[in-house]
Amino acid sequence: MNSKTDIKIGLFGFGTVGQGVYKVLGQTKNAHAEIKRICVRNITRPRKTATPAGLLTDNAADIFDDPEINLIVELVDDADASFRIVSQALCRGIPVVSGSKAMIARHLPELIEMQHAHNTALLYDASSCGSIPVIRNLEEYYDNDLLLEVKGILNGSSNYILSRVFDHGENYTDALQHAQELGFAESDPTFDIEGYDALFKLIIITVHALGQFVPADRVFTVGISHIRDCDIRYAREKGQKIKLVAQVAKVSDRSFTMFVMPELVEKSKYIYSVDDEYNGVVIRGECYDRQFMFGKGAGGLPTASSILSDIMARRHDYRYEYKKMKYVDRPSYTTDVTIRVYIRYDETPVPTLIPFTKVYEQLITPKDKYIIGDVQLSDLIARRRLFDSHDVFIANIPVLYTDRDN
Amino acid sequence: MNSKTDIKIGLFGFGTVGQGVYKVLGQTKNAHAEIKRICVRNITRPRKTATPAGLLTDNAADIFDDPEINLIVELVDDADASFRIVSQALCRGIPVVSGSKAMIARHLPELIEMQHAHNTALLYDASSCGSIPVIRNLEEYYDNDLLLEVKGILNGSSNYILSRVFDHGENYTDALQHAQELGFAESDPTFDIEGYDALFKLIIITVHALGQFVPADRVFTVGISHIRDCDIRYAREKGQKIKLVAQVAKVSDRSFTMFVMPELVEKSKYIYSVDDEYNGVVIRGECYDRQFMFGKGAGGLPTASSILSDIMARRHDYRYEYKKMKYVDRPSYTTDVTIRVYIRYDETPVPTLIPFTKVYEQLITPKDKYIIGDVQLSDLIARRRLFDSHDVFIANIPVLYTDRDN
Repeated sequence: MNSKTDIKIGLFGFGTVGQGVYKVLGQTKNAHAEIKRICVRNITRPRKTATPAGLLTDNAADIFDDPEINLIVELVDDADASFRIVSQALCRGIPVVSGSKAMIARHLPELIEMQHAHNTALLYDASSCGSIPVIRNLEEYYDNDLLLEVKGILNGSSNYILSRVFDHGENYTDALQHAQELGFAESDPTFDIEGYDALFKLIIITVHALGQFVPADRVFTVGISHIRDCDIRYAREKGQKIKLVAQVAKVSDRSFTMFVMPELVEKSKYIYSVDDEYNGVVIRGECYDRQFMFGKGAGGLPTASSILSDIMARRHDYRYEYKKMKYVDRPSYTTDVTIRVYIRYDETPVPTLIPFTKVYEQLITPKDKYIIGDVQLSDLIARRRLFDSHDVFIANIPVLYTDRDN
Repeated sequence: MNSKTDIKIGLFGFGTVGQGVYKVLGQTKNAHAEIKRICVRNITRPRKTATPAGLLTDNAADIFDDPEINLIVELVDDADASFRIVSQALCRGIPVVSGSKAMIARHLPELIEMQHAHNTALLYDASSCGSIPVIRNLEEYYDNDLLLEVKGILNGSSNYILSRVFDHGENYTDALQHAQELGFAESDPTFDIEGYDALFKLIIITVHALGQFVPADRVFTVGISHIRDCDIRYAREKGQKIKLVAQVAKVSDRSFTMFVMPELVEKSKYIYSVDDEYNGVVIRGECYDRQFMFGKGAGGLPTASSILSDIMARRHDYRYEYKKMKYVDRPSYTTDVTIRVYIRYDETPVPTLIPFTKVYEQLITPKDKYIIGDVQLSDLIARRRLFDSHDVFIANIPVLYTDRDN
């Protein structure tokens, strides 16, 4: 696309983010981009944003068959429909900007193939951390071997809930409802709360950080829904907060590990101060040590501003090159890593079920039971179902393979 | 340059950052870039980094006339020499990566012309905030009209000194010496301390943030060398810190202002926690509100990692497009802005010399004298010499045109 060409957008989906994009494009006189058609499931559904007659359609062909449309923006809240739209567009050689992290995390290898086969582009910076430019920076600025770790709070909704519960003494159900009312939570809140939203973002980040795609089912993922007052009390007594943290880190020159888990975060760490719906990402590397990026990670307008960045990038034919996938000696994914965890439990006999290699602390009272010890990540994955039960809460204590604070 | 071409670098300057680049390139097996020749003023000067025989030369022609060299990295600590090298390279169509902020801030319009006339590129992300990717993100990710303000701690050396003085009770001279010993201070420390280093970075940032070049002599710039115990005490009593802050901000749709000045920073602001040699930049815009980027802003290796990012970007023919300079309705620079300031003085009759439009607080004791009031920025610029005298300290109190915390 020539940089002087105006961008004519076919938009799929007109929810919070879609309406945000519509609003933002109307505000920016130098965007040289306009939405030509919006495809929705139900035209007559009442929406906050008024649109000119004829802009909305329920027929995808009105977008796909319009030769003037040179960019598809896909913001559909259903991973299967989203994949159909994006793959159809890419196979027709139409570039796409997408915010569908679940779909991208699931299909990224195919989507990369399609971009290559049909010489077109799929951009998705908005899919990770809303307004924070994580993907673009990993792909471009951190395009070298120095990168060691990407770690952060990637889900605004669960972070908002934890902030309400942890800092404001709200109960969990009220906090969840507030998050949904404010539009921070996805339509299926379990995605946010059980860590899957953060996992999908982490999978995408890992492709651009280390050039490796790891399928979701291979990554240990535990969310925050089992948190109880005693866990909050435990963290508070140590001057810590509990945050839902996603991380990918090199553990040697040859291997890296990744997981999503609540973490006991010390006050000295950057992510300690990331509260409410904010996201914060720490990028650690040789030479530059740590960099921290912080911004709004949820909400219609912040995400829309990121979609706008991707739209503008297409004016200059920008595409991800997936450079690190071509690196020699890419590190391999391993779960053969010792991590230290806090596990609080009720009836489940955690100490006998989990093969701790070392135990540091154990409390057994009629009210509270917890154990702190070292365990192999692979052993946790093998006992994944234990953490689905409603009386077990696990939190990472980051001490072992990261030798300095982040 | 084809992405499969290896990069052969001619390096000018082999000081702290130059040696850092040499070291970093040796560590990164996927850089596909090597230093072919290093031009220095004095070959025989002892250096920490050992180099193979024949790598060093004192003859610039050994680099300019080598047809294999396809990138010049310029890290010379003398703005005039730096400009001669960079303009010679660009006029020969050789792309350049430079870290010379003073030279770039002075000559940017000419350098943009040269890049255009000779169809080549000059990258300088390392020139602003060391390892933090500010320029690249302003140019690419924030390529839209939403941007309202860029504000931050851009000079690691003065920030290190303020941290030592402010948080550790060191005296100013000791703190300055420590900064120099640690390699955080430029060879001429007045650049750091009097705010010029931050100013040069701000000028470069403003080109990429708002598409406007403002010459250094038009920008109100005051540094930290006049800070006294009573200023530190004043800030501490209010629970604040004093930081040297550079900022550029739109004050209306049509205009923006910029200045470099110490600031009384409240605890709730992001930059309050930016201590020691770190830099922190707050980017504020419509829709995404505030984003914060934080990282090491000084030192050989962090800066070298940023130089590496620019080198790698050249493998993909990356160049700044200076897109915002082509925007319609770019805002114009104005100093017709009211700001609120704290001015501490001794013998100079500040209250009669400065035309305050409103005074909020005034203290006159045998020991301390200060005044807090609103003043036009243009009136401060007209009285610029007042702040060179050794008994006047000015600090911005950010309340007027920024309505929310940053």
